[in-house]
Amino acid sequence: MTLISQAKSGITDIIREVAEAEGMEPEKLRRKVVAGEIAIPFNPVHSPKPLGIGGGLPVKVNANIGTSPDCLDMEEEIKKAKISVEYGSDAVMDLSIGGDLTDIRRRLIEVLDVPFGTVPIYEAGISAAKKSAVVDMTEDDMFNAFENHAKDGVDFTVAHVGVTKESVSRLKKQGRILDVVSRGGSFHTAWILHNEKENPLYENYDYLLELAARYDLTLSLGDGFRSGCIYDANDRVKIQELLIIGELVERAREYGVQTIVEGPGHVPLNLIESNIMIMKSATKNAPYYVLGPLVTDIAPGYDHIVSAIGGAIAGYAGADFLCYVTPSEHLSLPTIDDVREGVIAARIAAHSANLARGIGTDLDLEMALARRDLDWDKMFSLVIDPEKAKRYREERKPSHEDVCSMCGDLCAIKLPRKYLRGEE
Amino acid sequence: MTLISQAKSGITDIIREVAEAEGMEPEKLRRKVVAGEIAIPFNPVHSPKPLGIGGGLPVKVNANIGTSPDCLDMEEEIKKAKISVEYGSDAVMDLSIGGDLTDIRRRLIEVLDVPFGTVPIYEAGISAAKKSAVVDMTEDDMFNAFENHAKDGVDFTVAHVGVTKESVSRLKKQGRILDVVSRGGSFHTAWILHNEKENPLYENYDYLLELAARYDLTLSLGDGFRSGCIYDANDRVKIQELLIIGELVERAREYGVQTIVEGPGHVPLNLIESNIMIMKSATKNAPYYVLGPLVTDIAPGYDHIVSAIGGAIAGYAGADFLCYVTPSEHLSLPTIDDVREGVIAARIAAHSANLARGIGTDLDLEMALARRDLDWDKMFSLVIDPEKAKRYREERKPSHEDVCSMCGDLCAIKLPRKYLRGEE
Repeated sequence: MTLISQAKSGITDIIREVAEAEGMEPEKLRRKVVAGEIAIPFNPVHSPKPLGIGGGLPVKVNANIGTSPDCLDMEEEIKKAKISVEYGSDAVMDLSIGGDLTDIRRRLIEVLDVPFGTVPIYEAGISAAKKSAVVDMTEDDMFNAFENHAKDGVDFTVAHVGVTKESVSRLKKQGRILDVVSRGGSFHTAWILHNEKENPLYENYDYLLELAARYDLTLSLGDGFRSGCIYDANDRVKIQELLIIGELVERAREYGVQTIVEGPGHVPLNLIESNIMIMKSATKNAPYYVLGPLVTDIAPGYDHIVSAIGGAIAGYAGADFLCYVTPSEHLSLPTIDDVREGVIAARIAAHSANLARGIGTDLDLEMALARRDLDWDKMFSLVIDPEKAKRYREERKPSHEDVCSMCGDLCAIKLPRKYLRGEE
Repeated sequence: MTLISQAKSGITDIIREVAEAEGMEPEKLRRKVVAGEIAIPFNPVHSPKPLGIGGGLPVKVNANIGTSPDCLDMEEEIKKAKISVEYGSDAVMDLSIGGDLTDIRRRLIEVLDVPFGTVPIYEAGISAAKKSAVVDMTEDDMFNAFENHAKDGVDFTVAHVGVTKESVSRLKKQGRILDVVSRGGSFHTAWILHNEKENPLYENYDYLLELAARYDLTLSLGDGFRSGCIYDANDRVKIQELLIIGELVERAREYGVQTIVEGPGHVPLNLIESNIMIMKSATKNAPYYVLGPLVTDIAPGYDHIVSAIGGAIAGYAGADFLCYVTPSEHLSLPTIDDVREGVIAARIAAHSANLARGIGTDLDLEMALARRDLDWDKMFSLVIDPEKAKRYREERKPSHEDVCSMCGDLCAIKLPRKYLRGEE
């Protein structure tokens, strides 16, 4: 019995827990889970803290971590996972492609109590590459990877099921500046072209659903053809992939399998809203999980800021789940500091989007009241990164304790108070 | 003869220079300058590089620097000014309130070749405060400060002419969480209430215009009542100030004096567009100069990111000039590093807004092509901060020169190329 199947019969404990955390009526939440508009990635083997994603709930944040062939320090990745959660990431994905992938995955599942995601196709592709080439992975390699991840307790896995003969052919017809920038998408594209066969995850999607249902694995569908530059945004290839994914979302619902759908990528800010609208229409309101969107290509080193802009706009327009981007994106594997910066930027984006939808305004109100009262301890208890805020204040101390070193005693908040409020 | 008066008779050298830099028809630019939709702050004493702001031109960026009573190292401020311009700020404002204000201002005018702005009322208020209290500044103190700044070559000055008996009374009627957060706004509010008199800059606005015309000083009108928290955004006080300012903009145009209008402040992202629309209507399309907007209150330490979100949305909605916000905002006077971070974040916002309006897309296209070709030298020549980008790549070196340490040889760009493009 999957979470969806159980929800069909009534309100479960997990649904009740999420409903309470989110302040949503349990029955409303139940209906949205059954309809596939809200996902609660929850593999019973892992049993993470239940997290609701989609359908009008506050926007959530995911942090991607993981090794590469060039950087494979497992302890560092564990630290990244922990710091992500410490700074407020709601979920963590392991994208490791270097070292002992099984071991890393299991260690991370052990230490994380938030929903945990992976990309099984990496494992299949990499073990094939070790023997000969990525394109030599077999259908069994692919499905076995999904099953291994599910058995280990992974809560949600990416499945690049929208990379098919049809969408690849559309890519060839159209041409693109950056053909494929999704690692998994590139594995499948190369595989389809080299083997002249359909993507097995698409062709035998029923079997994927069967596996997912057996372990109650949530499928994160996409995003093989996310745009890798502003120029390629919202192009026919990406929209084609979305149409295919929309069909597969509906089949998953019939199977009682939860899905999320992944999105762009590089998108100029004027095209973000339409991207989200078309995704929501094509999938009948599946939860939308976006990477970025990155609103310009020219700021590597600052892509957490670039993505915070896109993520805030996306969240306000209806995206449900923001995948963070770190300052090192496009340049190198992130360090622990980069991970923290990435999580904070994504949380700022998510919170700003929520605020614009009227969610979470109490926190800003409390902050404003603390500012009015020049109550620094209260402010530090409310801010997104108390350590950094305290450090700033500490490093350039004001001569008057109540104000800050920007205006000193000419504080704009303090000065007119006497005249407006009769306070000294 | 002011720049506007000259433009009335025909295309001047300055107009031609700006038109060329911006790729706008000189005659179109001339008409927009005469109409007051584009400002070119240009004091002949300073003669900066002419910069067009407003009326559909690409969004520009300003950096605020300046001492405080608690941090008054002039050499540091000079360095901040230089680094602002080095990292692409189009203008610099000196907000000094500590040390020898005249000396700082003159040194900065000497070293800067971009338009330079100040807030004369600080000088008037501070010298009054030294004798007794800010509220004891005289009308002469105020106008003398404007004249001194203009004589020294300041290109644009803030004049808080929207803080009047009327708007202060509206503030008292409505109440606000954060009454006033503009330093100049707080000076004028306190002055009006204490002296029970009208703001002299408003009451004798004709004299201010006369002074401005004499030195060809551009007036930056506002922003005494910018909202200091999400809760106060777009409230009656702020809109009242805009209505008053709108009238004053029109009077300035009649005088041949250029104006820009200043805006918020803390504004949730759903209210940014309406803020800009109402400002543009109230002022008949004056150039709009926004601080932030800051889309949440809870991220001091990261307010450059908070403002980049708001600035990008504002720029796309029609704001013309973004005042940067640094990570130290709300906590302390910025360091040189904070200034650089602030300028870069604001430039990312401005560029993202421009891109969304179809401006500057060539740069992103070149970047995308360099990425496709894995041409790292080319990429570094295009990015917003080449040093930081190189440092990232250097610190976590990939084992294969063409890729990066994120994916190593499993680079998504490289892998499918062979199959899609027949390249090895």
